[in-house]
Amino acid sequence: MKVSDIGEFGLIDVLSQVVATDRPQPQVTVGPGDDAAAWQVEASTLLATTDTMVEGIHFSPESEWWHVGWKSLASNLSDIAAMGGSPRYALASLSLPDDTDVDDMVRLCQGIKHLGDIFGVMVVGGNVTRAPLVVITLMVVGQALAEGVMTRSAAAPGDLLAVTGHLGSSAAGLRALTAGVEMPASTREHVVGAHLQPWPRIAEGQLLVRQGVRAAIDISDGLGSDLGHLCRASNAGAEVSLDRLPIHPAVREAFPEEAVGLAVGGGEDYELLFAAGPEVMDRVLAAAGGRQGEKDCPITVIGRITAESGVSLVDAEGGPVQGLGAGWDHFRKGG
Amino acid sequence: MKVSDIGEFGLIDVLSQVVATDRPQPQVTVGPGDDAAAWQVEASTLLATTDTMVEGIHFSPESEWWHVGWKSLASNLSDIAAMGGSPRYALASLSLPDDTDVDDMVRLCQGIKHLGDIFGVMVVGGNVTRAPLVVITLMVVGQALAEGVMTRSAAAPGDLLAVTGHLGSSAAGLRALTAGVEMPASTREHVVGAHLQPWPRIAEGQLLVRQGVRAAIDISDGLGSDLGHLCRASNAGAEVSLDRLPIHPAVREAFPEEAVGLAVGGGEDYELLFAAGPEVMDRVLAAAGGRQGEKDCPITVIGRITAESGVSLVDAEGGPVQGLGAGWDHFRKGG
Repeated sequence: MKVSDIGEFGLIDVLSQVVATDRPQPQVTVGPGDDAAAWQVEASTLLATTDTMVEGIHFSPESEWWHVGWKSLASNLSDIAAMGGSPRYALASLSLPDDTDVDDMVRLCQGIKHLGDIFGVMVVGGNVTRAPLVVITLMVVGQALAEGVMTRSAAAPGDLLAVTGHLGSSAAGLRALTAGVEMPASTREHVVGAHLQPWPRIAEGQLLVRQGVRAAIDISDGLGSDLGHLCRASNAGAEVSLDRLPIHPAVREAFPEEAVGLAVGGGEDYELLFAAGPEVMDRVLAAAGGRQGEKDCPITVIGRITAESGVSLVDAEGGPVQGLGAGWDHFRKGG
Repeated sequence: MKVSDIGEFGLIDVLSQVVATDRPQPQVTVGPGDDAAAWQVEASTLLATTDTMVEGIHFSPESEWWHVGWKSLASNLSDIAAMGGSPRYALASLSLPDDTDVDDMVRLCQGIKHLGDIFGVMVVGGNVTRAPLVVITLMVVGQALAEGVMTRSAAAPGDLLAVTGHLGSSAAGLRALTAGVEMPASTREHVVGAHLQPWPRIAEGQLLVRQGVRAAIDISDGLGSDLGHLCRASNAGAEVSLDRLPIHPAVREAFPEEAVGLAVGGGEDYELLFAAGPEVMDRVLAAAGGRQGEKDCPITVIGRITAESGVSLVDAEGGPVQGLGAGWDHFRKGG
């Protein structure tokens, strides 16, 4: 069944059913299907972000739509995680051709719903319109913790730099999917999972804020690029030890020559990069090490913030390293 | 200068400058350029909506980008108006080809900024990504008045039906622009203005809520289609007198044969359709008539809500009228 068979309003009815939640949401006074959503809030600091995925750019027509839905929400939740907040509500804007399969859009919304349920995020509204190709824009509204938020501009010379999780796994997964690289099944599972189902670091972001971290950014564009953003916003520089980068053993094994390049410039890792003084960092490492859980992730100190501007990469002996890609820019020629 | 010349982050810098506001915004703690925007709210009911405009569907490559920006925000503000609320913050997601002129995107954002300034809406964040064509998704977050909100589901049999402003002017403007129809300059000014720069009925929506109206919808899809939505959501029907439709004299003159069809099915009028009991309606008409101002708009009773489902159109003698388009569906074949 095509979208043109049931029309805009038929599609909205179908997709509203998919994202409808069974959980009581007494604070939501108007849900999907009206001119706007309405919900009650207490006095607080709100957070809001938006991200877009375009067919042929961020996913291919052969992508599994469930994964596209998961990832389109995950990228937004990662932004909320980088502020140290709690995501609450999502709005979804779908632009699509009239010969799109309704079932594909159902699976897309099932992927959104699945991840949303994990993190307590309700889809409260959205919009459907016609376009020559599929474009998915999600917006997420959340709340900051009472302790505060993390921003890109709060890093200071003397801070240590650290990251959550592993770097380069998502880019390795993209290669595994597109270039037919041979690798063990367990390696493939790790890297493809990292690429198709990134896990937003909501719990980690909140842990950081509670331990006193105030400077963070998510590294969806790649460590090199996003560290540059953090440094520029903070009027500072950084030095990163390449031998400390938390590259998953499976990635080092499958891509021995390229692993460091993937970790620095691959992008789409959706991990958090943050900066904090040594005392706060000690508290973070102690608190993070004490947690248990299936999705627990390592936290690794990879360098430090410097007073001199610019990002320098150094090897195990502290010598400068050149020639690694700086990260992802959606428009730069050859970027 | 093309977007590819300055890159994603260069473009974000340029556009952030365009939408930056001079007005103090002490409640905004994190503005554009971080992972998410942050602002403080009091205990209240929030409203959120999103709308998308696609190149080749909602505007042509020959469109003036300033108008595209205005309209992309206006359509979202109209949704907030239909709830009777106050718009506050906007996020903008731009998808665009890498050979897009930077100046075009500057004008787009100038149009957004201009309308935002009029209604006190600040652009607090957004996203830029690459796509084969321009797609603009805006999200607006606002606040409900303490008096409550208007929804599509609150109409009841016995209510009178009324609309703000004029119907069919936007569709007439589209024809004036695309079909080269001859008309006096003042007529052209009215209809083209209605099409390119729709005025969101924020003041009128708030007036309605304050006078006790609780059932409303914006008629961006056309009176016929959106009245159907109001009736279905309210489990009711409606009867509309075609001779009461507030069609601007300029539209009747320029399109004598088609004026009623444009008013019922043309779409994009961004007026409010609302339902209320006779006493509330009397208060609304008294309050609306008492206001003055350049952008004041008429409020016209056009029919009533019925217990029987379905929408019937009747002529001056109360006889049924057939054969008028039901409104706009983005996907239906021949719709």
